[in-house]
Amino acid sequence: MTLEEKQDSAFKKQTRTIIFGTETRLGKWFDIVLIVCILLSVLLISIDTIESIHAEYGRAIYYAEWCFTWLFTIEYLLRVYSSLNRLSYMRSFYGVVDLLAILPSFLALLIPGANVALAFRILRLFRIFRVLKLLRYLSEGNLLLKAMVQSRRKVFIFFFSVSLIIMALSVVMYVVEGPNNGFTSIPKSMYWTIVTITTVGYGDITPQTNLGQAIASLTMLIGYSIIAIPTGILTAEISHEMVAERDLSRNLIKCSNCGGRGHVLQAQYCHHCGSQFESPSPEGKS
Amino acid sequence: MTLEEKQDSAFKKQTRTIIFGTETRLGKWFDIVLIVCILLSVLLISIDTIESIHAEYGRAIYYAEWCFTWLFTIEYLLRVYSSLNRLSYMRSFYGVVDLLAILPSFLALLIPGANVALAFRILRLFRIFRVLKLLRYLSEGNLLLKAMVQSRRKVFIFFFSVSLIIMALSVVMYVVEGPNNGFTSIPKSMYWTIVTITTVGYGDITPQTNLGQAIASLTMLIGYSIIAIPTGILTAEISHEMVAERDLSRNLIKCSNCGGRGHVLQAQYCHHCGSQFESPSPEGKS
Amino acid sequence: MTLEEKQDSAFKKQTRTIIFGTETRLGKWFDIVLIVCILLSVLLISIDTIESIHAEYGRAIYYAEWCFTWLFTIEYLLRVYSSLNRLSYMRSFYGVVDLLAILPSFLALLIPGANVALAFRILRLFRIFRVLKLLRYLSEGNLLLKAMVQSRRKVFIFFFSVSLIIMALSVVMYVVEGPNNGFTSIPKSMYWTIVTITTVGYGDITPQTNLGQAIASLTMLIGYSIIAIPTGILTAEISHEMVAERDLSRNLIKCSNCGGRGHVLQAQYCHHCGSQFESPSPEGKS
Amino acid sequence: MTLEEKQDSAFKKQTRTIIFGTETRLGKWFDIVLIVCILLSVLLISIDTIESIHAEYGRAIYYAEWCFTWLFTIEYLLRVYSSLNRLSYMRSFYGVVDLLAILPSFLALLIPGANVALAFRILRLFRIFRVLKLLRYLSEGNLLLKAMVQSRRKVFIFFFSVSLIIMALSVVMYVVEGPNNGFTSIPKSMYWTIVTITTVGYGDITPQTNLGQAIASLTMLIGYSIIAIPTGILTAEISHEMVAERDLSRNLIKCSNCGGRGHVLQAQYCHHCGSQFESPSPEGKS
Repeated sequence: MTLEEKQDSAFKKQTRTIIFGTETRLGKWFDIVLIVCILLSVLLISIDTIESIHAEYGRAIYYAEWCFTWLFTIEYLLRVYSSLNRLSYMRSFYGVVDLLAILPSFLALLIPGANVALAFRILRLFRIFRVLKLLRYLSEGNLLLKAMVQSRRKVFIFFFSVSLIIMALSVVMYVVEGPNNGFTSIPKSMYWTIVTITTVGYGDITPQTNLGQAIASLTMLIGYSIIAIPTGILTAEISHEMVAERDLSRNLIKCSNCGGRGHVLQAQYCHHCGSQFESPSPEGKS
Repeated sequence: MTLEEKQDSAFKKQTRTIIFGTETRLGKWFDIVLIVCILLSVLLISIDTIESIHAEYGRAIYYAEWCFTWLFTIEYLLRVYSSLNRLSYMRSFYGVVDLLAILPSFLALLIPGANVALAFRILRLFRIFRVLKLLRYLSEGNLLLKAMVQSRRKVFIFFFSVSLIIMALSVVMYVVEGPNNGFTSIPKSMYWTIVTITTVGYGDITPQTNLGQAIASLTMLIGYSIIAIPTGILTAEISHEMVAERDLSRNLIKCSNCGGRGHVLQAQYCHHCGSQFESPSPEGKS
Repeated sequence: MTLEEKQDSAFKKQTRTIIFGTETRLGKWFDIVLIVCILLSVLLISIDTIESIHAEYGRAIYYAEWCFTWLFTIEYLLRVYSSLNRLSYMRSFYGVVDLLAILPSFLALLIPGANVALAFRILRLFRIFRVLKLLRYLSEGNLLLKAMVQSRRKVFIFFFSVSLIIMALSVVMYVVEGPNNGFTSIPKSMYWTIVTITTVGYGDITPQTNLGQAIASLTMLIGYSIIAIPTGILTAEISHEMVAERDLSRNLIKCSNCGGRGHVLQAQYCHHCGSQFESPSPEGKS
Repeated sequence: MTLEEKQDSAFKKQTRTIIFGTETRLGKWFDIVLIVCILLSVLLISIDTIESIHAEYGRAIYYAEWCFTWLFTIEYLLRVYSSLNRLSYMRSFYGVVDLLAILPSFLALLIPGANVALAFRILRLFRIFRVLKLLRYLSEGNLLLKAMVQSRRKVFIFFFSVSLIIMALSVVMYVVEGPNNGFTSIPKSMYWTIVTITTVGYGDITPQTNLGQAIASLTMLIGYSIIAIPTGILTAEISHEMVAERDLSRNLIKCSNCGGRGHVLQAQYCHHCGSQFESPSPEGKS
């Protein structure tokens, strides 16, 4: 790689630092401007679907949209040009997303209506985490992610059991309410069960018979109760991770005399045997 | 049992290992194929209740359904044949569920419409936990189950109190709103209270009077607040269980004199026999 | 008191033990039969408000209701007769509730419709906790109650802040949506805000303007987020109480030689100095 | 300042102590009366928007409202007069709120309808925390606030991710359901997604197609699951803060040699200076 890098022109190097990097001031500003552009572009596409706005500002939005498309096209080409390994960039998640962000505009010239897909530009916003990294936001996200990964098995068992409950309740409600009250099929009944058990409760399908309302009440109470389970799992995991992080800094400090552990960070003497630490716990900080 | 086992034919033994066991490769594959069959069968029965699909594919689904029924019938007979204790299998939970999974099809020949009960085949999916066991999923489920069993008394008191609150609020709303605004009876009013307190909120019955809306607001705030209680109970339990599991690592510190365990990390003397540890708990780290 | 007790007739004593006590077998059974009677009676009153059931079984329910009323009247008189201090019983919570459980029936002879108040008989069910006490359920309830009392200040601040948010949002929505879309007055707007912020969402009043829907979205996200706060408070409290309960048993055991604490319950030797405990931690159990 | 204070007249001093202070009995009562006035005034403005009440009591409320306005005007002028630094008070949060509490009444003389803004007087109620401070309520609020500040980064990442999910689902639903079923534009679709993901579920816009209902079911399950995340974060933080507060009691163990604190309960030697404790931490119990 270092050989390749040397062969790069100064311009290519500079471009790479600005576009891909976030360490330099220019690189950081580039990312911020890019994120603002993405947000503006998505906002325009969204409000353009409102009839009254489309009628009045449709033309202006159309031109603005093409500006953004050309900007993103130039940016994409620069990314491909300046990346160390072009193919690996184009195949990466961001490479595909960056292409998807401009493709629908050109496709819309052939197929009308395709440019609604432009709203998926929002996916590019995940880039924001790159900038946030500087502010050490990501370490927080890592703790969240770790807690979620740790609890994935418990959450899977939970959702599997909930699915079985939903299936069973759907069949019961389909049989009880019959096809007259909106419960026209088992999938429809399943839709109602999910609407009820998650406590959303649209009210587009509601039980009419006394028995149906009794079972519906039961369904609600089940949904109301089991909402506690994923919360409990996740909270316990996050709590666990936070304690582990805190404990880590405490157990790293070991007394060289008696081998005892469990010292607080500020300790200068072992609280087991009273011998002085050589250098006051320098490796204990995280 | 070992005597009985010896008398079994090789075929019977083989069948039992495949059908009931999950340790061999064949046994595992049998279970996975079975689960896929159950899922497919339930899916077919479910979508068959959609009018448009029944009109077009009704016949095909009917034949497919009979295929599954015969498959499950053969499987059931093989299970009965190869089980060590036939009666105890037939009376077990899975034995009854396995029978219920095929019975409605044959009953539907006599009573039309009975085959909707086939959807209860979904209960057979609990078998999935048997396969998951291999992947040590169940230990996670055990922790969840243990936390739920531990908190059963607290949850019971909670639900008992909530029931009393629901009853009282139902009567009040029935008196306040009168039979004109959908609150036609106390059970109906109870249905409304449950819809409201669980924050489902269908909107099929809503208070119309000012006083009714004030009491409804109160009901919602109660529901919104007390949702915290089961979550709090369960979270504390799960957290407790997880800490207990972590504390088990403490039990790794073993006294070289008496072999006792359960020491705290800072222990310098065994609390069983009083002998001093050579090096203070060096293998206690997890 | 002991003097008074001696003057009591044997019958009065016996009655008191059965009616008020839960320690004897008869006393326990009396309470269970009473609870079943209360449940049955409340059930009858509830279903009697359903038109179709009233039309068909109205007369039977009427007679059954009078039976329960006479039973409860006799019970009430026996309670007054056999209580050690009659006035203090009649003024106590249960004394008032017991009277309220029979009064509406007699009042209904004068004022028609008064007997709907009979449903408040449900309050008598709190007696169930008396029986449950035997099964040491109440200690669990105590932990819950203690956690709730401990967190009362935090919960108060939370609800006060939520009230201010609700008020502010109500005024904004009243101004934005105007009186045309159901937001006819600020109290009505407040009702809508509570329906929304608690995520109940009836849908009887919904914003129609674009700005109104944007503010409504904000309201929902606020409600969705702050639901975490009471849960967090309560969970932390319950967890705290549970740890405190567990830690209690650990800190009671003190070494008489070195004064060290923190021993596990099974400890027979101090893990600080290795000296043997005289009697192996007998006072450490809770 | 002390110089300035000396120059103040006795009346000005007295006024300042009563109006701004909460330590004296008069100052406390002044604040309580003020809060009651604010509550009454807001209540009047709120119920005045109800048609029937406005028709009957409109005139009386109008006069009462002017009384409150003059009271608050006098109070504002006294505050400006007696404050140590007038400009800094007028520019402070409470200074602006106090002015806003009286301005709309006078504006309403010029612009009709402006006095609805009077309801923002509710903001003045934040003053209540000043009185509560005396009852040490605020320390509890501080813990809550601290937990919220601590978890702000995690919560930000959560809301940012949820926003991206909402955007993506909105576009999908807009494409799937088309403009016929209420999903007339992407902002409208976004409103529906928020209504669904927060489990509010008005039911004013509901999916009609099978695919739409399937995606809606997924949205609900996502909303139902991720509600656990902010709860988990906040609970872990609050729990953490509470443990930290409890750990402070550890700081009660003070070394008699160097006066250092922060020892763990089992400490036998000071970890600051290495001197042995006479009796192992006897005053460390809380």
